[in-house]
Amino acid sequence: MELATKLDERLKAVSSIGSDPTGGMTRLLYTDSWLEAQKYVKQQMESFGMTTTFDDVGNLFGRIEGAENPDETIMTGSHIDTVVNGGKLDGQFGVCASLTAAEYLVAKYGQPKRSLEVISMAEEEGSRFPFAFWGSKNFVGVANNDEVQDATDADGKKFVDEMRRQGFDFSPKQTRRDDIKAFVEEHIEQGSILEQEHEQIGIVNSIAGQRRYDIVLKGEANHAGTTPLSYRHDAVYGMAKMINNALDKAHQVGDPLVLTFGKVVPKPNTVNVVPGEVLFTMDCRHTDAEYLVQFTKEITDMMTQVAAEMGLDISIDLWMDEKPVPMSDQIVKTIEDKAKAGKYKYRVMHSGAGHDSQIIAPVYPTAMIFVPSIGGISHNPAENTKFEDLVEGVKLMADTLYELAYK
Amino acid sequence: MELATKLDERLKAVSSIGSDPTGGMTRLLYTDSWLEAQKYVKQQMESFGMTTTFDDVGNLFGRIEGAENPDETIMTGSHIDTVVNGGKLDGQFGVCASLTAAEYLVAKYGQPKRSLEVISMAEEEGSRFPFAFWGSKNFVGVANNDEVQDATDADGKKFVDEMRRQGFDFSPKQTRRDDIKAFVEEHIEQGSILEQEHEQIGIVNSIAGQRRYDIVLKGEANHAGTTPLSYRHDAVYGMAKMINNALDKAHQVGDPLVLTFGKVVPKPNTVNVVPGEVLFTMDCRHTDAEYLVQFTKEITDMMTQVAAEMGLDISIDLWMDEKPVPMSDQIVKTIEDKAKAGKYKYRVMHSGAGHDSQIIAPVYPTAMIFVPSIGGISHNPAENTKFEDLVEGVKLMADTLYELAYK
Repeated sequence: MELATKLDERLKAVSSIGSDPTGGMTRLLYTDSWLEAQKYVKQQMESFGMTTTFDDVGNLFGRIEGAENPDETIMTGSHIDTVVNGGKLDGQFGVCASLTAAEYLVAKYGQPKRSLEVISMAEEEGSRFPFAFWGSKNFVGVANNDEVQDATDADGKKFVDEMRRQGFDFSPKQTRRDDIKAFVEEHIEQGSILEQEHEQIGIVNSIAGQRRYDIVLKGEANHAGTTPLSYRHDAVYGMAKMINNALDKAHQVGDPLVLTFGKVVPKPNTVNVVPGEVLFTMDCRHTDAEYLVQFTKEITDMMTQVAAEMGLDISIDLWMDEKPVPMSDQIVKTIEDKAKAGKYKYRVMHSGAGHDSQIIAPVYPTAMIFVPSIGGISHNPAENTKFEDLVEGVKLMADTLYELAYK
Repeated sequence: MELATKLDERLKAVSSIGSDPTGGMTRLLYTDSWLEAQKYVKQQMESFGMTTTFDDVGNLFGRIEGAENPDETIMTGSHIDTVVNGGKLDGQFGVCASLTAAEYLVAKYGQPKRSLEVISMAEEEGSRFPFAFWGSKNFVGVANNDEVQDATDADGKKFVDEMRRQGFDFSPKQTRRDDIKAFVEEHIEQGSILEQEHEQIGIVNSIAGQRRYDIVLKGEANHAGTTPLSYRHDAVYGMAKMINNALDKAHQVGDPLVLTFGKVVPKPNTVNVVPGEVLFTMDCRHTDAEYLVQFTKEITDMMTQVAAEMGLDISIDLWMDEKPVPMSDQIVKTIEDKAKAGKYKYRVMHSGAGHDSQIIAPVYPTAMIFVPSIGGISHNPAENTKFEDLVEGVKLMADTLYELAYK
């Protein structure tokens, strides 16, 4: 079996399901193209002897029973859904990588000592309904059915109806398997670190936590000509000082801290009126939970002080607070040992984006393998990776699964 | 004749013409309510013996011939049009103040030595058609007919058609009278300096020049999680540094410099994307033409340098450049002498807003009298001034016109 050929075939086949005229992919949870893709993956699993099952909600599992320790399962996989008009790698490359690595091992070494499973998760992106990680959260038994009970998509279709239409239903009880000894997910980086550093592989040791804020400054809207500077309470001046201070400080701290002020909406937003109000957002991420809290506190304290000095009212609303998730040291070390032995061009790194692995890692020993994203582009039809880098990623996945399931 | 009573009557009468249900005024050039207001002013002028004339474009003049020097004219007045949903003082208070002061003088002292004229100018605001100062520019012979030849209002009505519908037309040639020895305009401050400094009168010695810019910074839009700070070209970070530097510097300089960044539009303006682009505006005003150019050059040089340091492309578009207009030292001194003698609570100040006087001052000796604006509010139905302050303003206007026309 030729690993690269199989990978190429599978990526092309799965990309034809849900492709849109812009060259992108739209394959949302419980749509027909979504089910078609899961059925394609099921057929591929069965093509090399895996037994397949869907769970209640539509996660797909393909399994090769272990010869010596069948009750110890080594699992690998990613998610099958896409964002709206997304690229051809996010999610499905991980599924194809796991499938192809597993097939390669079975073809070359036969039945593994431990059971080997590939999972094609139902949903990760949160792009159809306002709930993300539906696949992984059901897999590890932490999904909250109440949150999707009344959810509808943009067309007003109900989550529950769409799920049942495709033959699935809520899991009657949240159960958790105790046979899983390792989970390894492969994914595109969705950033440009590997490309810029000329590496082909990222071994992910942590997924960054993130805190998102809405900040509203209220001053006084005034005539831009008739109001002396000393009389003003200029909301945009306050914001500029805060953003400048915060980013200067963040740049001093450096990696893995990132800080983004992506949205700015002043009022009335007119050239000749001193802005009386401004709303802006802050997105801060770090791999260390305590440091993330400490740094954001320093920033919000600074903001509060600047607001007081400038006579501005400030409200700071923390509306997303996701803790960083460390990967398993042991699985990271296993992957790194194989990467060293195989002379892969790799670096150990964290992920700034969210992944199914952050849901799975608190429950089962987990780590991730990244391959480079050209130009760091993702969630876009232009999302791409050199094919040779994809192949390197699948080879390292095979090496790792060999170590975990066959040794 | 009771000055305060007359003023009150006139303000109420003229405010009923073009008043809207929100309590504001909308009386745009060449509308029916505009003509009705001019006809009301004409009738008021005639009520105390003024002879009245309209010029070609609709400026209204009321004249009392001078007994000794009829060829020397002392002129006073303001504009009759309003902004959309404006207040009840901007423009028309000046017309009523001039009318009432003139009537008071004629009632008390009879015929003046020099001719005394009140002008009710056709248009100042630029609120209906994209051209401001139509009244004063025609009065002093600097209007450019080509600029309004094809102008239409928001409903697609043509400037030319609307002008002719009300019985007016382009002035066949731009002429300039040589009899005018002084022009004095009264207006609300539209700022809060007088209120905050507990003064009732502002004597305007200069109208600030203003320069307006659009600034566009282009960097690179990136994923807020996966792009390390050191890889970023964050347009909002650049903007924050520029605005903060510029306003810090402006605050060190202080009055009469004002600097406003009123509009900010980042792209894509989303919490989790590093902003790849931002457009923002700068409005800078000062009474000294040379200093205004020098200061804005320092700021734009600083911006260009910050952009280069941060790897951002910058474009700086100066799309408005109005020079400061000094008032006549002699007229300012005349007003100030009367203010001192009459123990008015006054200060000499500049105007940060634009006025007809800036068009007239380069041609005839000109100055302005301001009365306070409550809360600095203008161009808004809440625009207001204590009635006792309005009366003080009219009294000082009468004192000034007495000095200029009767002495």
